Order: sequence, then C-alpha cells, then structure tokens
Amino acid sequence: MTKHELFENIQRKQSFLCVGLDTDIKKIPQHLLQEEDPVFAFNRAIIDATQSYCVAYKPNLAFYESLGIKGYIALGKTVDYIRRNYPDQFIIADAKRGDIGNTSEMYARALFDYSDFDAVTVAPYMGEDSVKPFLVYPNKWVILLALTSNKGSQDFQLTADAQGERLFEKVLKKSQEWASDEQMMYVVGATQGKMLEDIRRIVPNHFLLVPGVGAQGGSLEETARYGLNKQCGLLINSSRQILYADNTERFAASAAEEAKKVQEEMAKYLQV
Amino acid sequence: MTKHELFENIQRKQSFLCVGLDTDIKKIPQHLLQEEDPVFAFNRAIIDATQSYCVAYKPNLAFYESLGIKGYIALGKTVDYIRRNYPDQFIIADAKRGDIGNTSEMYARALFDYSDFDAVTVAPYMGEDSVKPFLVYPNKWVILLALTSNKGSQDFQLTADAQGERLFEKVLKKSQEWASDEQMMYVVGATQGKMLEDIRRIVPNHFLLVPGVGAQGGSLEETARYGLNKQCGLLINSSRQILYADNTERFAASAAEEAKKVQEEMAKYLQV
Repeated sequence: MTKHELFENIQRKQSFLCVGLDTDIKKIPQHLLQEEDPVFAFNRAIIDATQSYCVAYKPNLAFYESLGIKGYIALGKTVDYIRRNYPDQFIIADAKRGDIGNTSEMYARALFDYSDFDAVTVAPYMGEDSVKPFLVYPNKWVILLALTSNKGSQDFQLTADAQGERLFEKVLKKSQEWASDEQMMYVVGATQGKMLEDIRRIVPNHFLLVPGVGAQGGSLEETARYGLNKQCGLLINSSRQILYADNTERFAASAAEEAKKVQEEMAKYLQV
Repeated sequence: MTKHELFENIQRKQSFLCVGLDTDIKKIPQHLLQEEDPVFAFNRAIIDATQSYCVAYKPNLAFYESLGIKGYIALGKTVDYIRRNYPDQFIIADAKRGDIGNTSEMYARALFDYSDFDAVTVAPYMGEDSVKPFLVYPNKWVILLALTSNKGSQDFQLTADAQGERLFEKVLKKSQEWASDEQMMYVVGATQGKMLEDIRRIVPNHFLLVPGVGAQGGSLEETARYGLNKQCGLLINSSRQILYADNTERFAASAAEEAKKVQEEMAKYLQV
C-alpha cells in the first residue's frame, strides 16, 4: 500500500486506528475454546466487528509463536482473511525483527513473500544493513523502533551523545538516509506532547505508529494534537482495550463499540 | 544447561565451536530436494557429522520462517533431534527478539516452553523489561546483542555518550544488573583484539557468543587470545563455512572435516 492510499483510507473512514491483534488464548471468551481454531475464530469476529472503524490491523507475532504450529496457522489464516475480505486494511507484522543482511533478507521473505503483510516493525540496533533488506519490496514498509512506550525505553533510547543528541533522535535522523517517508514509519510511544513535538521536528512528514494509547496509558487527544500532520501521519494502536472489552458471547459487539468510540474521537481531530 | 555443565562439555570435547544452522534451501545439495523434508534431512546429516566437534548448535530462525509452516516444522524436528540424540549440546535460538514485557513473555514461551531451546539471542534496544521475561526460566539463557559483526553495527552501537561510554559498553554494564553470568551471555562480533580486550574488562566472566569467525571474517586465533577466560568464556560460531563446505553427496563428510579442523585449532588454545 502506498502512503497516498493509506491517507485516502484514513480520510474516507475518518479513522487512524490500528487494532492490535495480541490474541491471547488465555483471555479470549471461554465458548470459543470449542472451536477448531479458537484464535482465528476470535480474530475473525473481532475483524468483522471493527473493520469499519479502523484502517490497520497489527498481529503481534509473539502471541502466535507462543502456540507453536497452531499459532502459526492461525496467524496465516488471519492475514489471509483480512487481505481477502478487507483489502483496504494495512496489515502490520509486529515482529521487532532485525539481523545481519542475509538474515533480515530471510525475515523479509517470511513476512512479505510467504505472508502478505504490508509492514514489519524492525529494531534498529544493528543498523543500516539490518534494515535495508526489508526495503527492496515495493509498497512494503519498515516501521522502525525509535522511542518505545515501555519503562525499559529509558535504559538506552534516551542516552545522549556528546552533542546532546539522544539515541532515538539519532535513529530518526540516520534512518532517513535509508528510505523516504513513502516506505518508512517509526514506532513512537510518545505519550507526552513535548516529546512528540521534538520528534515531529525531526520527522515532520513520516507516519508514526503509536502503541501507547489505551492500556499502555497514552492520551489520544494529546497524541493527536502534537502528532498529526497534513497527511494525518499517525496510526494509533489499541489492542487490549478493544480485544478484551468483554469476554462474554457479546465480545465482538463490545469490541465494535470500543473501536467506534475511538474512531469518533479521531474524526474530530481529523476535521481540525 | 548451567554454566558449569557447558564448561565441562567444552573441556571434554576440547571445543568451543557452535555450528550455526542457517539452512538455506537454495544452497543445500540438490539430491536432498527429493526428501520429504529437505531442510531437516540436511540438518540431521550435518548434526550427526559435526556433533563430536562442537558444543552448541544455533538455528537461525529467519531461515526457517522464510519457508512458512514447512520451515517451522523443520525447525521443531531439528531441535527435537538434537535434544534426543545429543543431550549435551547447547541449543541457541538465534532470533534477535525483544519487545515490551507481556510480548517478550510470549516469545519466551515460544522458545523455552513450546520449543526446548537453551538460549535465545535478544536485542537490547527496548531495555530491561524487554529482556527480563526470558530470565524467569531456570537454566535458560539470554544472549544479549552487544557489539555485532556487521557494518551497520557502526551506526548506533559505537556512539559514545558525554562521558565517552559507547552504546555497546552501556549495554554490557547496564544488563549486568538484570542477570549474572550464569544466565546471560553477549553477542560480540569483535574480530579485533583491541575491542575484545575492552569488552573483557567490562565482562571478564561472561560467555561471549562470537559470530564473526569464518564467512564474517574474524580470526579464530586473535579471538581466542583476547577472549578466552578461566572457564573458556567463548562460543565461536561458524555457519556457512561448515554447512556449505561441499554441495555434493559428500556434504556431511566435508562439514565434519571443516568442524574437525576448527575443533583441533580450538583444542590448542584451550590447553594454554
């Protein structure tokens, strides 16, 4: 998907919501455990219920890998289901991959050839040649970790060099030499306006994937105020708050209500 | 496996060789493509041929993931095969994982519960809470990326802070607060003696996994001279040089010869 197409979807749906499919078999409604593939049954219901309120889905690969081959199959079915039924959705492999060139090339094959994701989250620690193999696929995206939303983000990401430039800022600057805003986004767990302002100064035009709204504690209003740009430039993820809004047989309807609430709030910010 | 057991295996076998199972279906001998599971058939032959010369195997997960479900099955069979037939081998998931706590927990389940790896390589960018979930498993190891061997390692890992401390040094220091040398190792692609000396000053007792010998260009002699400690403290990986020594029907015998050559050189350094 191109940046332009993504922006068109956002305008049409009046939403920049990404639904994170962190599907935990221990948290899904009990009655689904009778299904042949409970994880896929849950995802399908969530996707059908929320697709009109969001523009992206983000399966978190760890949750599928923890179930072994069954999880792997459920993940494949989920991606195929979205692709076939809702081709305007942007599908993100939240995988945090990154390795030496010949190995990143294999991860890119796994996610872009074998699976048909639109984007993959990549860790920047190993530098340019660990990221570039993902960029040879036309209309596929790298979403590079810059500033994450967890406590451990303070351990290394905020370390300043002798010139006062923090590691996440260095990642934002350096990586612009590797790809343009047509192929690169950044994970920015900035839930404070000040930090997001700093980041927008370095990457005014890029899309930012913001994981920290909802269970991770960020404010949608503040993120929108400091993060939106002329082509929206934000994908805001919500996982647990939508997936586990309700664990009765009404779970999908409750997920839809949660997603709708977020979408309606987003619509207001898009119209400013 | 405990550190003590690993050291015993090293002494008994007079080897600190780790064979990297970066099995590429495009590079394995043609005749194996007739097998039902060519990747597993190749791995099994390589393992049988090399196991007496090495103390560890390191499947590179990207290579399996690139084949989808078939690759995933071949990986599972490979780990089971080593575990059943050669229980003294240390099995490393070269996965470069790392995410927020609840997600790293799922990766740990995938690699330590569903699969039975002894260790996983982890990327440090997201800090403490991205690493800790792997450490709750007794006798399982985290091998944290410190200084990698690729060109891109220069992009961020060598950046010095205001006090002159480089990022990889900060990773080595900070992470010692999270686990001892009984549960943590480091990936150190140091192929220059000077760098390895600097690293040994910070982590005198830890095992280092060194990926850069062979195809990635490091010298075994120099690495041993500056890297060995009283309990060996090194696992040196070789992948391509052993796996693809020969692509005829003699491939396993050639792999054994290559592994034996490395083991014999290692035996000399261990006796000093």
